[in-house]
Amino acid sequence: MPVNLNLPAASPVPGVKLAACAAGIKSNGTNDMVLFTLPEGAATAGVFTQSTFCAAPVTVAKSHLAEQSGAVRAMLVNSGNANAGTGQAGINNATSHCDALAQQLGCSSNQVLPYSTGVIGEQLPSDKMLNSLPALVAGLNDSLPAWQQAAEGIMTTDTVAKLTSKTVSVGEQTVTITGMSKGAGMIEPNMATMLAYVFTDAAINADDLNQALRESVECSFNSITVDSDTSTNDSCMLSATGVGAPLSPALSSTHWQAFQDALNEVMLLLAQAIIRDAEGASKFITVAVAGGASVQDCKAIGYGIANSPLVKTAMFASDANVGRLLMAIGKVGLAGLDPYKVTVNMNGLPVFEQGLLHPDYSEEQGAAVMQASDITVSVNLGMGDESAHVYTSDLSHDYVTINAEYRT
Amino acid sequence: MPVNLNLPAASPVPGVKLAACAAGIKSNGTNDMVLFTLPEGAATAGVFTQSTFCAAPVTVAKSHLAEQSGAVRAMLVNSGNANAGTGQAGINNATSHCDALAQQLGCSSNQVLPYSTGVIGEQLPSDKMLNSLPALVAGLNDSLPAWQQAAEGIMTTDTVAKLTSKTVSVGEQTVTITGMSKGAGMIEPNMATMLAYVFTDAAINADDLNQALRESVECSFNSITVDSDTSTNDSCMLSATGVGAPLSPALSSTHWQAFQDALNEVMLLLAQAIIRDAEGASKFITVAVAGGASVQDCKAIGYGIANSPLVKTAMFASDANVGRLLMAIGKVGLAGLDPYKVTVNMNGLPVFEQGLLHPDYSEEQGAAVMQASDITVSVNLGMGDESAHVYTSDLSHDYVTINAEYRT
Repeated sequence: MPVNLNLPAASPVPGVKLAACAAGIKSNGTNDMVLFTLPEGAATAGVFTQSTFCAAPVTVAKSHLAEQSGAVRAMLVNSGNANAGTGQAGINNATSHCDALAQQLGCSSNQVLPYSTGVIGEQLPSDKMLNSLPALVAGLNDSLPAWQQAAEGIMTTDTVAKLTSKTVSVGEQTVTITGMSKGAGMIEPNMATMLAYVFTDAAINADDLNQALRESVECSFNSITVDSDTSTNDSCMLSATGVGAPLSPALSSTHWQAFQDALNEVMLLLAQAIIRDAEGASKFITVAVAGGASVQDCKAIGYGIANSPLVKTAMFASDANVGRLLMAIGKVGLAGLDPYKVTVNMNGLPVFEQGLLHPDYSEEQGAAVMQASDITVSVNLGMGDESAHVYTSDLSHDYVTINAEYRT
Repeated sequence: MPVNLNLPAASPVPGVKLAACAAGIKSNGTNDMVLFTLPEGAATAGVFTQSTFCAAPVTVAKSHLAEQSGAVRAMLVNSGNANAGTGQAGINNATSHCDALAQQLGCSSNQVLPYSTGVIGEQLPSDKMLNSLPALVAGLNDSLPAWQQAAEGIMTTDTVAKLTSKTVSVGEQTVTITGMSKGAGMIEPNMATMLAYVFTDAAINADDLNQALRESVECSFNSITVDSDTSTNDSCMLSATGVGAPLSPALSSTHWQAFQDALNEVMLLLAQAIIRDAEGASKFITVAVAGGASVQDCKAIGYGIANSPLVKTAMFASDANVGRLLMAIGKVGLAGLDPYKVTVNMNGLPVFEQGLLHPDYSEEQGAAVMQASDITVSVNLGMGDESAHVYTSDLSHDYVTINAEYRT
């Protein structure tokens, strides 16, 4: 059961067509292939995993995206198999799917980007996938149910589809931003998360789109962690179909900022949704670090707390073992940090100051706060004016069960 | 139940006296205070946690050790309370215990080093501890049962005491090295582990002793991890009572090397014992990384695998989800690593080479290897000639249970 996950409703983005089908990659018969198409003139930007063992589709998608300078016409996603650790055969499979789809859509092969998510180290069932392409192409449509089916089709251990929208006024016109994400474990994205696809009907050039995406990723998908494990397949894509209002910082900085704010909000909701639906999650935890000398310092402390198995098991147990917060801050080894200047509170309750428990803190108050399903741990480092947020889940028996039984 | 933990039997070290008692710090009535004394002329070296939130006794012990240049006469340990996150009051408590003990032993206060381990963020029951000192001093003796009681008295969530010995021939004489360790969670030591006390009757000056300890720690306590969490109280001490044979690199490099080898072996056994008795452990996992450009690179990859919750849950489940090993290597982001040159095997079974599953690997073979309780994951990076080992445990339901219920 996701923790307090209530995403605003989604609307289709004019210009995007979608289809999903069950190719038989997943053994349970649910949809496991998804196709997105974009009109001519659309622009796409992407950020991908920093893993040195990045998956074959990531290698191919990055290369196609660069060759076409963002002029992408289709994105093909499969769940149930990551096509990672599959060597040259994996690259050949991903490329052959692009070739076949390009022929059926009437575009270049390198205008098609491939994505995979699922088990690592096994070759894709490429014949099944190639056989499913004609039905996928025939099924393309722009209805809201198609968006919902696509969001479901990219799921692996997710328990719910994650799809949401926001609109922005651009003069007389309205621009829509709609995105979906998946991922529930192997989550400490480094430049992107498992898979996220965000679309807008605004007309935005590839450079501006790229800049908007990078700003947005830093405070959303690059600020979450379930288990400190970074996937081989992380990809986060932003496409602008161009059928709606033109937007750029040069045309109107006000409209551009409104778009960037809305994009940041959609991306943050999608990233937080991954944590709210994280494997075994019973708590949604925000680590809000302020008073840092740099954003990087704040993020390092945030991840120190968010990745600590001992903090996460205490959260699971609703045990106010607040000393573990100090341990987790201390182990980061931040140069120049003075323990006597650090303050910590939980949902507004002062916990630590001046190197020891706050004089007004009581075990009863701590225990009461720990009962909440949304908990914010606020840390002030007393070193400067920078801040950052990191979002995480607790570490529960269900996390162990899910990951011990993932392939069975 | 510890995993295949069979330490060689221990012998007393001439010159060391010990005592343990139950001061009532732990609620279960077991021994929670331990005193070690050393004769005049003994030398002691120590390495301590790098946490910026290091505990009050660590601050005091480091300062006393430096002031006396290693001429330590007593070490006082309590379990059940870490005296960490306790501010100036914590420092004052630790110092007052040294003062009181020094008076009873007839030495300087800064010849006494304090140590604590247990819950973080609570003040020590200082009165109870001061009241117990006379009985501790009266009980000092050099028998083997006293060593066993001391090893039990420093335990927290450990299930067994960890105590072992090794002897070294120095010409006609025999030198004994005997050590004990404790720790089962909050274990990724950074310059030392939770608590370890190693003694020898050799006569070694403080500088040589310090060098021997640092070499030994690097391949033992600084190569283990249970949960990636570094304690506020890590301390690893090495004392030479000086009542036995003199040893130094200057006197005889052969004898010195024999001593260093034996010390390395004792320290490694004690460090591995912590992992074999780690919270919830059902597997003992050695990550052996070779072919690195540097030892640091090898350790980084080793810790990447050893700290991965997804690798650890797969080990717990005996699930040969070997793709997670590639994920864990990849997420480290080692510059210059070529996935096509990396090889991975498990207990000698080839798993990966040239970027994909080894052609001879089968799921059945992988599953058979995963049934073992001692598993060695061997990685060759194909980048150079350096190597390192990291030791870890699996991530089980019992780990979650133990740490969700630690304070109850």
